[in-house]
Amino acid sequence: MTTQITPQQYGVGARFTLSVYDSDYVRIILDALSAADPTGLEIDTGDISTFISGSEQRILEYLAEVISAAAATGVHVSASILLSRGCPGELQCELPPGVAALGADPIRLASVGRRARAHWSLYPLLDAIKDDATSAPQDRSGGTGVPGDHMEPIYAAIKGAKEAGIYSASDHFATRLDGDLADVLETVANAWIGVGANVQHVVTHVTISMNSPTQV
Amino acid sequence: MTTQITPQQYGVGARFTLSVYDSDYVRIILDALSAADPTGLEIDTGDISTFISGSEQRILEYLAEVISAAAATGVHVSASILLSRGCPGELQCELPPGVAALGADPIRLASVGRRARAHWSLYPLLDAIKDDATSAPQDRSGGTGVPGDHMEPIYAAIKGAKEAGIYSASDHFATRLDGDLADVLETVANAWIGVGANVQHVVTHVTISMNSPTQV
Repeated sequence: MTTQITPQQYGVGARFTLSVYDSDYVRIILDALSAADPTGLEIDTGDISTFISGSEQRILEYLAEVISAAAATGVHVSASILLSRGCPGELQCELPPGVAALGADPIRLASVGRRARAHWSLYPLLDAIKDDATSAPQDRSGGTGVPGDHMEPIYAAIKGAKEAGIYSASDHFATRLDGDLADVLETVANAWIGVGANVQHVVTHVTISMNSPTQV
Repeated sequence: MTTQITPQQYGVGARFTLSVYDSDYVRIILDALSAADPTGLEIDTGDISTFISGSEQRILEYLAEVISAAAATGVHVSASILLSRGCPGELQCELPPGVAALGADPIRLASVGRRARAHWSLYPLLDAIKDDATSAPQDRSGGTGVPGDHMEPIYAAIKGAKEAGIYSASDHFATRLDGDLADVLETVANAWIGVGANVQHVVTHVTISMNSPTQV
């Protein structure tokens, strides 16, 4: 496996919407965006959501900084985040031929010291290919391997969240996470990265809520 | 294909987070939720998101009513919506054996008269099975059919959005929609239902923004 492929070539990136439940939301959102370090990232903020492209570690650091800065105001905030890796489905995706799936190192985030509650879903968009040793590298249509079960990596990711102490419950369509914002983002991102080692096109969505007045 | 299978058995439902960018958000959200007709639906509102189960038509009517009521206050609102159909991944999913995929009639919504801008993604979680006439009904692991291309139904759905006049652009990881809230929700839901006729487990995510001060 070559290391020459950049995250951008592989379609690694995020899209997120930061919601601030306060009449002063414009200032709070702009302050939060400018509080985060954009080093190494391509960032494009639009009217619906913000696009981020770069390495997995830098993308997640940026997300943690933006959301944490908004939550530090004390107002109720939520963030709807999409993380994607693999092609196609990404305008910039230019995957060299023969690359079946490309993992990455797990990310690590410094503790934020703020509680986040989240609903999380993980979507492997091609079933894992169970290789037989004699087959050629699989292409994205499934190649010569045998299709696996797309729920298998999802259950493994939920098991990982339980081991991390972040798992809170299994709700309809989503797994409930509860913990420090950094731990929640780490769990979501590392499951996405981990599944991405076997499945090329993997998307995960998480809705994070902080400072909610609703007691749980 | 039997008509005895209920949407609940098939895991049809939604999860959504309504975000209100105003200090009076608690009242606005509660008013919006109570303005919508819950007939025929199971609704469970929690601290992160609201779960809805029922028929496709009723779910989308409810979503249109809640979001429209919140937007009618004139404040900036966004809604992050997940629609899911098929098993597993749904706590209540009890799919009878031999059911490969189950479509539904397209939904129809009355015009809301309010503009919505959206970022939309569609995830067929099993590749479409290209049946050969002699094969037995496919099971969810792929059965005896030949796996198709999971991007094919996505491109078809984007084509449908263009024909509906709702397509605005292809952004990274998402298709941009722009139009009456009802038309945006119809496009999203009917693509999800349409892909669901061939693919059992289909999820779609859309982030809708209304009354945004950002001009586009």
